[in-house]
Amino acid sequence: MRFLYLGLILLSSMLFAQDYSDYIKTAEEITRKALNDQSGYRMLEELCSIGPRLTGSENYNRALLWAKARMENMGLDSVWLQPVMVPHWERGNIEEAVLTSGSIVKNLSVTALGGSIATPPEGISAEVLEVKSFEELELLKEKARGKIIFFSRPLEQGLLNTFAGYGGAVDQRSSGAMNAARYGGVAAIIRSVTTKYDNVPHTGSMNYSDTLPKIPGAALGYIDADYLSKMLKIDPQLKLTLKFNCRKLPDIKSYNLIGEIKGSQYPDEIILTGGHFDSWDVGCGAHDDGAGCLQSLEVLELFKKLNLNPKRTIRCVFFINEENGLKGALEYARYYDSIGTYHIAAIESDRGAFTPEGFDVESDSLTIKKISDWLPVLNRTGIEYVKNGGSGVDISKIQNIKARIGYVPDDQRYMDVHHSANDTFESVHPREFELGAAAITVLVYLLSEEGI
Amino acid sequence: MRFLYLGLILLSSMLFAQDYSDYIKTAEEITRKALNDQSGYRMLEELCSIGPRLTGSENYNRALLWAKARMENMGLDSVWLQPVMVPHWERGNIEEAVLTSGSIVKNLSVTALGGSIATPPEGISAEVLEVKSFEELELLKEKARGKIIFFSRPLEQGLLNTFAGYGGAVDQRSSGAMNAARYGGVAAIIRSVTTKYDNVPHTGSMNYSDTLPKIPGAALGYIDADYLSKMLKIDPQLKLTLKFNCRKLPDIKSYNLIGEIKGSQYPDEIILTGGHFDSWDVGCGAHDDGAGCLQSLEVLELFKKLNLNPKRTIRCVFFINEENGLKGALEYARYYDSIGTYHIAAIESDRGAFTPEGFDVESDSLTIKKISDWLPVLNRTGIEYVKNGGSGVDISKIQNIKARIGYVPDDQRYMDVHHSANDTFESVHPREFELGAAAITVLVYLLSEEGI
Repeated sequence: MRFLYLGLILLSSMLFAQDYSDYIKTAEEITRKALNDQSGYRMLEELCSIGPRLTGSENYNRALLWAKARMENMGLDSVWLQPVMVPHWERGNIEEAVLTSGSIVKNLSVTALGGSIATPPEGISAEVLEVKSFEELELLKEKARGKIIFFSRPLEQGLLNTFAGYGGAVDQRSSGAMNAARYGGVAAIIRSVTTKYDNVPHTGSMNYSDTLPKIPGAALGYIDADYLSKMLKIDPQLKLTLKFNCRKLPDIKSYNLIGEIKGSQYPDEIILTGGHFDSWDVGCGAHDDGAGCLQSLEVLELFKKLNLNPKRTIRCVFFINEENGLKGALEYARYYDSIGTYHIAAIESDRGAFTPEGFDVESDSLTIKKISDWLPVLNRTGIEYVKNGGSGVDISKIQNIKARIGYVPDDQRYMDVHHSANDTFESVHPREFELGAAAITVLVYLLSEEGI
Repeated sequence: MRFLYLGLILLSSMLFAQDYSDYIKTAEEITRKALNDQSGYRMLEELCSIGPRLTGSENYNRALLWAKARMENMGLDSVWLQPVMVPHWERGNIEEAVLTSGSIVKNLSVTALGGSIATPPEGISAEVLEVKSFEELELLKEKARGKIIFFSRPLEQGLLNTFAGYGGAVDQRSSGAMNAARYGGVAAIIRSVTTKYDNVPHTGSMNYSDTLPKIPGAALGYIDADYLSKMLKIDPQLKLTLKFNCRKLPDIKSYNLIGEIKGSQYPDEIILTGGHFDSWDVGCGAHDDGAGCLQSLEVLELFKKLNLNPKRTIRCVFFINEENGLKGALEYARYYDSIGTYHIAAIESDRGAFTPEGFDVESDSLTIKKISDWLPVLNRTGIEYVKNGGSGVDISKIQNIKARIGYVPDDQRYMDVHHSANDTFESVHPREFELGAAAITVLVYLLSEEGI
């Protein structure tokens, strides 16, 4: 009996090993094809030549038509647009921050935060109160009235993970204007949330409260934030003049873009791969998140090129409006959950196109274990781990789903470029981009073959 | 009895856990200090401003004096030079590859390979025979006589690991001239061994045989290698004219540079950390291997700054002549083995200053297991694995040693810059560099506290 069991165990582990070696072969084939053709990377070059893709902008529409044509030429089974109403904020063409101290007059490198109101046409001129935190502002609240509040706490460079550093500083961007307004501040400026010591300002969304005055919000380049801080020590009465003509327009109709390959055996089981197609209006949203979208699309292209006929349906989604409203993700989830679409998994790529590190999975422990067991296959693309962890904001709204999965690449250079003019095609490395595309493709392949 | 054992096991595992949390705290402190101060990265900026450091060059001596002064100012217990005779090859100031086909005359981007002989002053003009491999050359040997042999096989982009790709193409560089000479070729040129699609040629060492004629060897930029290949299809009789005035001078005296902090409890047990201080004479040897040297030196600096008093002696070695002779490594091992120095471990950093991935260890399985057990501490610096694997060429010669360890960072961008004018300070990312320094420091700290 014992020998029989042993025999069965040996047999099953041999069968299991057999399966793996075929998967490993396919994973290596996928990786080779991605690295040799670099087709997603080439698509990204085309996309970036169109320019940035702010939600509601003409440029978004141009890029969308380009991407739709790309999908249609790929021979997918279906390509369609999903309409959704989105916010429409425009930066305008005036962005100024001028420091005046005695005879010194200096233009600082500045960008309005996304969603900010404009200044009056003549600008806002005021003294500056520098604080490192909301707690410090609370302590100094008597001094805040009529001032421009300068939140100068830098991203903590000393942490291994740059997203942790970002998370520790970004409250100044998202809530700085509200907190400044609470104590009578007339505008809020922040030190850019960045890992790079340069003078390129980083934008990003900011919030207002209905119960507090709305005041403008902006970010300074890191070097000019240092300069302002230094000057305030010499001349605490120096004046800063801010001028912005950004504006919020009425909501506008826009679209998510969806393309899919129908599954041959379980067409009703959807494996979603996607990113957000909108970007901030500085740089060209190469890493954030043009790359994530085109890696996701390359997944479908690699299936076509390598004649991999998926058992389950593979759907690529380019979500609109992740940066300033999440309307695309909300509408996608609302509609497809409402018609009973079942997603067995959704994979989001929205952390830059750097060298693969792992997959963070939101699911039950058995499912996470099952995906972890594929590591000997996944690591043919450079994936080092599969673990429980947060996936991605665009797929977070889908309810009828088994596993939400975030693709996690190396993060050391992401915050250098994030939400800034540094986020250009040139900052993306072809091999790093393509390994990400290969990693997601191999995971999708395993999901489509094995299910979960 | 059973309960007693269980109690002891629980107790020891609790003590063990206690030890780990202290180590983790120290690891995070080391990482924070490295990332915040970026002192090794700043040293690299100074070093690169001196220029490249070819073995035997005046520049090597200038850089050596700079580094010695740096070590002395760091308050180490000892700093000394170890003399060693090294080869002395000079590139000269003439490097030309001119293609002539009908009325087309075009200069190609070219660099002589390290160790190459010069051409005659008037150059070598000949037709070109393109081959992808030594096997193809053997087949076409009747056509080789009097020709310039063009080895055009590219580095295989389709492999996950770029060192594997490099290993599959570099025989053309190291042995191309010998193989060409065997069949009467008058010179050997290669497609640069690179992952980057640009026109920057990559140099590197080449070998001659005493039994074959010595002919010049050179590398073309990738784009010009494509161009030459395309032109050969149009005009197989096109002429290439090569002109180089590189030369080999008599061997010259030079030095390894060594600095150390004496161990407080086991001063005779050496933990070596090092890289090679010589570089090729194009670019400035930032990744290869200025970074490895200065990460190794930063280890000692971090011990000083954080008042970590090591139980064992920590020795930093800058080896000379890794690129074209290995004389520094050979002399270091010969001398210190001969006087009975015991290295418990040597760690080499010579794979670029990119994001940490792991440590490859050459030792017995128990030692590898022991170092693997430290992963929960090491991963505070981004280290993902410890495994059995090749360490590094400079430490490979030391015999009286327990463990040889290679620091392994992400390799995706290394071959873009390796041995080329792309290998500049600007190609090094501060956080990636500093995480490497932190990773090695934490490993050295564990080795110095725990022994192996």
